[in-house]
Amino acid sequence: MIIRPRPKGIEYFLLLRGSILPNIWRKLAVTIVMAVLVTLMHGALYHVKIRLTTIPFTLMGLALAIFLGFRNSASYERYWEGRRLWGSLGTASRNLLRQLYAYPQVSDSGGPQQRAQLAQLQKHMAYATIAFAHALRHQLREESWGEEIARLLPAERALCWQRLQHPAAAILQAIGSDVGCAMARGWLAAPLAQEIDRSLSQMSEALGGCERIKNTPIPFSYSVLLHRTVYVYCYLLPFGLVDSIGLLTPVVVGVVAYTFFGLDAIGDEIEEPFGLTPNDLPLTALSYGIEISAREMMGETAIPAMPPPVDYCLQ
Amino acid sequence: MIIRPRPKGIEYFLLLRGSILPNIWRKLAVTIVMAVLVTLMHGALYHVKIRLTTIPFTLMGLALAIFLGFRNSASYERYWEGRRLWGSLGTASRNLLRQLYAYPQVSDSGGPQQRAQLAQLQKHMAYATIAFAHALRHQLREESWGEEIARLLPAERALCWQRLQHPAAAILQAIGSDVGCAMARGWLAAPLAQEIDRSLSQMSEALGGCERIKNTPIPFSYSVLLHRTVYVYCYLLPFGLVDSIGLLTPVVVGVVAYTFFGLDAIGDEIEEPFGLTPNDLPLTALSYGIEISAREMMGETAIPAMPPPVDYCLQ
Amino acid sequence: MIIRPRPKGIEYFLLLRGSILPNIWRKLAVTIVMAVLVTLMHGALYHVKIRLTTIPFTLMGLALAIFLGFRNSASYERYWEGRRLWGSLGTASRNLLRQLYAYPQVSDSGGPQQRAQLAQLQKHMAYATIAFAHALRHQLREESWGEEIARLLPAERALCWQRLQHPAAAILQAIGSDVGCAMARGWLAAPLAQEIDRSLSQMSEALGGCERIKNTPIPFSYSVLLHRTVYVYCYLLPFGLVDSIGLLTPVVVGVVAYTFFGLDAIGDEIEEPFGLTPNDLPLTALSYGIEISAREMMGETAIPAMPPPVDYCLQ
Amino acid sequence: MIIRPRPKGIEYFLLLRGSILPNIWRKLAVTIVMAVLVTLMHGALYHVKIRLTTIPFTLMGLALAIFLGFRNSASYERYWEGRRLWGSLGTASRNLLRQLYAYPQVSDSGGPQQRAQLAQLQKHMAYATIAFAHALRHQLREESWGEEIARLLPAERALCWQRLQHPAAAILQAIGSDVGCAMARGWLAAPLAQEIDRSLSQMSEALGGCERIKNTPIPFSYSVLLHRTVYVYCYLLPFGLVDSIGLLTPVVVGVVAYTFFGLDAIGDEIEEPFGLTPNDLPLTALSYGIEISAREMMGETAIPAMPPPVDYCLQ
Amino acid sequence: MIIRPRPKGIEYFLLLRGSILPNIWRKLAVTIVMAVLVTLMHGALYHVKIRLTTIPFTLMGLALAIFLGFRNSASYERYWEGRRLWGSLGTASRNLLRQLYAYPQVSDSGGPQQRAQLAQLQKHMAYATIAFAHALRHQLREESWGEEIARLLPAERALCWQRLQHPAAAILQAIGSDVGCAMARGWLAAPLAQEIDRSLSQMSEALGGCERIKNTPIPFSYSVLLHRTVYVYCYLLPFGLVDSIGLLTPVVVGVVAYTFFGLDAIGDEIEEPFGLTPNDLPLTALSYGIEISAREMMGETAIPAMPPPVDYCLQ
Repeated sequence: MIIRPRPKGIEYFLLLRGSILPNIWRKLAVTIVMAVLVTLMHGALYHVKIRLTTIPFTLMGLALAIFLGFRNSASYERYWEGRRLWGSLGTASRNLLRQLYAYPQVSDSGGPQQRAQLAQLQKHMAYATIAFAHALRHQLREESWGEEIARLLPAERALCWQRLQHPAAAILQAIGSDVGCAMARGWLAAPLAQEIDRSLSQMSEALGGCERIKNTPIPFSYSVLLHRTVYVYCYLLPFGLVDSIGLLTPVVVGVVAYTFFGLDAIGDEIEEPFGLTPNDLPLTALSYGIEISAREMMGETAIPAMPPPVDYCLQ
Repeated sequence: MIIRPRPKGIEYFLLLRGSILPNIWRKLAVTIVMAVLVTLMHGALYHVKIRLTTIPFTLMGLALAIFLGFRNSASYERYWEGRRLWGSLGTASRNLLRQLYAYPQVSDSGGPQQRAQLAQLQKHMAYATIAFAHALRHQLREESWGEEIARLLPAERALCWQRLQHPAAAILQAIGSDVGCAMARGWLAAPLAQEIDRSLSQMSEALGGCERIKNTPIPFSYSVLLHRTVYVYCYLLPFGLVDSIGLLTPVVVGVVAYTFFGLDAIGDEIEEPFGLTPNDLPLTALSYGIEISAREMMGETAIPAMPPPVDYCLQ
Repeated sequence: MIIRPRPKGIEYFLLLRGSILPNIWRKLAVTIVMAVLVTLMHGALYHVKIRLTTIPFTLMGLALAIFLGFRNSASYERYWEGRRLWGSLGTASRNLLRQLYAYPQVSDSGGPQQRAQLAQLQKHMAYATIAFAHALRHQLREESWGEEIARLLPAERALCWQRLQHPAAAILQAIGSDVGCAMARGWLAAPLAQEIDRSLSQMSEALGGCERIKNTPIPFSYSVLLHRTVYVYCYLLPFGLVDSIGLLTPVVVGVVAYTFFGLDAIGDEIEEPFGLTPNDLPLTALSYGIEISAREMMGETAIPAMPPPVDYCLQ
Repeated sequence: MIIRPRPKGIEYFLLLRGSILPNIWRKLAVTIVMAVLVTLMHGALYHVKIRLTTIPFTLMGLALAIFLGFRNSASYERYWEGRRLWGSLGTASRNLLRQLYAYPQVSDSGGPQQRAQLAQLQKHMAYATIAFAHALRHQLREESWGEEIARLLPAERALCWQRLQHPAAAILQAIGSDVGCAMARGWLAAPLAQEIDRSLSQMSEALGGCERIKNTPIPFSYSVLLHRTVYVYCYLLPFGLVDSIGLLTPVVVGVVAYTFFGLDAIGDEIEEPFGLTPNDLPLTALSYGIEISAREMMGETAIPAMPPPVDYCLQ
Repeated sequence: MIIRPRPKGIEYFLLLRGSILPNIWRKLAVTIVMAVLVTLMHGALYHVKIRLTTIPFTLMGLALAIFLGFRNSASYERYWEGRRLWGSLGTASRNLLRQLYAYPQVSDSGGPQQRAQLAQLQKHMAYATIAFAHALRHQLREESWGEEIARLLPAERALCWQRLQHPAAAILQAIGSDVGCAMARGWLAAPLAQEIDRSLSQMSEALGGCERIKNTPIPFSYSVLLHRTVYVYCYLLPFGLVDSIGLLTPVVVGVVAYTFFGLDAIGDEIEEPFGLTPNDLPLTALSYGIEISAREMMGETAIPAMPPPVDYCLQ
């Protein structure tokens, strides 16, 4: 995610970082060069004048507007739903921590030993909660489980889970087991175990929602049709304009192609919001945010620092 | 669902698999041939000049934009809701498994016999959970119950349920009975039985939602009106263009008709997302995904393999 | 709801059943006749030439696009929400039946008599659940309570409820009373009574939602403004076209008026989705579907048949 | 809310009640008079010809379409959300009544005295539920608390609450206290008290949602910008049309201005849906509907009549 | 938020406060001055005539409509979701207060001492609930914790929490601890503790949702592309208009630029709805509203006054 102060006036035209231009300059250059050639030849190919008025572009514009408008909304909704799911994960993690520390109680007959066991179990579950956020990030970005998670989980479990296809789901199951365990030992009333289980279900929903966005792109035929239409539109455009605006054709084609290709390229980026391109969601920052909030709630003092943005870009 | 790496530049124009062209080439060819004929006759039928300017197309374009825009969103929403319901089913299955293994407890007085009975019951319910996903797929695709489900359910039950009109609902009911049974035997506290029941209700909602999408298409009159408008638009278009762009008429008509017919055909495919056409949802993969995740949670080692995509297409 | 296989190519133009044409042929005929007259008189009224170019139609088209686009979405949303609410009712009914049969338990000291009483109560409540779906249909379609419901409810209750303004709500209340009764007799744990009550609340929500859609149309002034604009647009259109496309005016006016009137008429039908017009929701089929599913879950063998579509139309 | 049978054909043009015309006739008349003047002067101001083609209107039309389309959807969503919240309130009230009468139980040792006390408490809470709906209506319409609520609440409470800024919230709190009281006396199991509390929370959400819609209009700058654009568009329009359509200019300007001003005026009405203008929500009818349904559930026989529509308009 | 009575007719053009003009007058002036220069030079730069017809603006208008329409909806959704979250916070706070005062009970054996302790605890939690709303406001506006919160929280806690990165989350955790404490002392049944915990979770969701909106703007590349397109459009516009409308060019350019820049500027304001610009959400008023309602429910008499709007603007 790009984080920078809102530019003013002319700055909008000068900045490169955050602009989508680097992604599309190649096809943009091709389009402009073609427009220059068409202009120089006055819209003729080997003495055959290509008589293309602006009418076809109005007609195609109709389909294009539907395509780009729809694609744009659909991509943004995927992006925003991804963000919402991570927000929901953060909320569920906080709720889980609040519940884990507030509701289990050792009865007076339990003595200090049970109290220590409970404290140990609570810490255990809290760390697993943090590990879940990092594990989800690694799963979505197809990164390997590394020391990042090992520092939060018991060694043998981390090893065992690395081999699974769904390690994040295993972490949730382990927390559930610990809850069942606390209840079996009489430390937790059933209705509150139920409430804690609901926080786990909310985390499970965040997991399932992210997997859904990651695994199911916008239907492929759709993308193909959209891209073909945009390309054909931009490549034919000079023939339609050269008769009416002459030498300014390449300029106008450049501006129009820039907006269409740009809109398309941003859509490509945010359609799959869990990657590492500049406009993707900052999963690293989000999962560290969850860790920081969790550690503050645990009363810890060694809080890890938030990873800072690099070149205005938060990952 | 078509799964292939995002094409680049010229590749977009070369690929056939994933393009909607195979579905529409016939009507597209008819349209282009008509456009060629109209162009050759300079827009006249037997010496009667058809004087159709582009004005009618601008007016019809208005209705067409509303139609196609709406139809397109409605179809995609059906597709995405179908996917969302299957995601919700996956989440509910995981939650159910977590709850089934974490919360029932045999009291100390129960002894190893009850423990074995509980373990048996848990396995039973877990397998039924997996069977539900496969049964829902078979129901939505109108396939027969085969050995796929028989391997997961007790033989007599599978036989009995095959004759029902709603076998998937029967599976849920059976899991509910088992939960009631565990509670009656004192293995499960009522609030947690309640929580498990809620997972069953979530699965029931996924079932009902999928049935809704399958049984209730977009109103039929709507489709008829839309198709008629698209056809009339594309077939009349050459008469409107031939005077202004002459020999290029078939090219422009071809491009415009390709986008409109294509948009329409993709809508037709994803409107009913549970079928077997290339852009439909990969229900087989989704239900095996649920099975794999469930078996991992059960600690099994014989995990079935995910069905691989065939010719870039996941079913 | 019209149920027929998707037509192909030319079939789209030949079918009448399912087309909206029967609803609008009168006003369409008037419009075309007017267009023919205008064309014959070359756009003049008693020697006064009506000089109306296409410009006003472009300007009015703007408002029309907003109106029709909005109206169309709003109507479809009402239709789809109605369907969703009935789907939710079906799901809640299934959940309720699952819960009713799985969770109440007669303790060992209860003996066969209590068991029989419980079985009786369960059957009672299950039948009331089925009756609710039929009662809701009758309420929404303003039909009288007939033998259809009498076969499901105790005679005196049915009589008594017929006189109420909200009979469906009374059925829910009666089920609630029975649940309270089962709990008072010790057959049902409070958390599970709570869960059953939640299914009742879901059915209550479906009831309230359907009443809302039925009682609150799209604001009336909106419909008036929309209809006036569509009529004025279509009636003035020939004056705008006759100078540029001459004898083809009536054809184009016919096509444009067909799409606009058609779009409007479909909107009128699905805006109130609980009626008996062809594109309305098949409430009879839906409520029988709920009955069939419920009877299967009760283990009954005398399952009523689904009412078949008549002339492609399911009611 | 205007309730009248759907008009047919010519009736659409004759009816006044339900048309938005009475709200806008003044500015419409000004616009038409201006258009007549411009037409008579052939678009010149004191010999200075105002050469304004239709091009600026196409450009401005773009912004106008976005504005009106957005504003229109946003207003309707506010209207529909208001209706939804009142529907949700009705559902919650019914659920609450069902729960209040079905679940509290006096144990056998309680005797007839406790039974009478419970019946008294139930009636008390049921009346408070009805009072809540009326109180919410009065709060939203800024009407004074009158005898309408006094007949439902104990006199001293009604007096005391009148002085509060949030009387409706106080009613909910009082019902909550009564629930706590019933639970403390052993008449109500905790899980069912929890379920009743949830109905109270749903009513609280309806209250909060209505307050939100009432207190937070669409951003003011938005309205200003929209109105300015609409006015400028309509007032300049005659200059753009007079050269091409001559004497018909006032007619076309009138039609276009009628649609734009009308769309805008309906938006103004339904944006704040709790008022007393004709297209607003019929809060009086809705709250009496809640009262009728509640009294039927209480088994009362003196059911108040629904307030009838006056001049087709339900308040 | 700007609160003023709806203007009438001419007033719309005279008011400045609430208009977006002050934000955009600079770039608007630049655009108009450029338009005047272009008009004076008849669209030529140093004898080189810039032959730019209106065609490019129609083409660019397509992209612009998609951009502005989308951006506009996305910004308003952020604004409205922010408002909705604060509404949800208000509802949750009221529910929490109702629950805190209605459900905890000291058993008869508890005596007056426990009753006093409970009353103390309740007051404690109620004040913390109020403090949460203020703390959230300070966090969202990046203001320092001041005496405003100190008056509501025990001094040592306020001090301690000031140093945290997420102080609002800490307040929720503290309320949770107190609930656990009340339950451990036998004052609160577990199912009702669960219900109270759910109110805390709802407050936690409001917190997480607000953080999400604050931390995740609309993708930056999107804003850049949009702004560049709007600027280029408005700056090139005079060249496209000067040939057809001559001296009126600056007027039309001014009007068009005013709507586009205005639309854009309002979007900028409401995109980040928690700031202090005129169209932002009135967080101060909202949090005082929560405080007033809470204090009324606590039966307090010293109710703080609502901060009045300053110059029509509520903060």
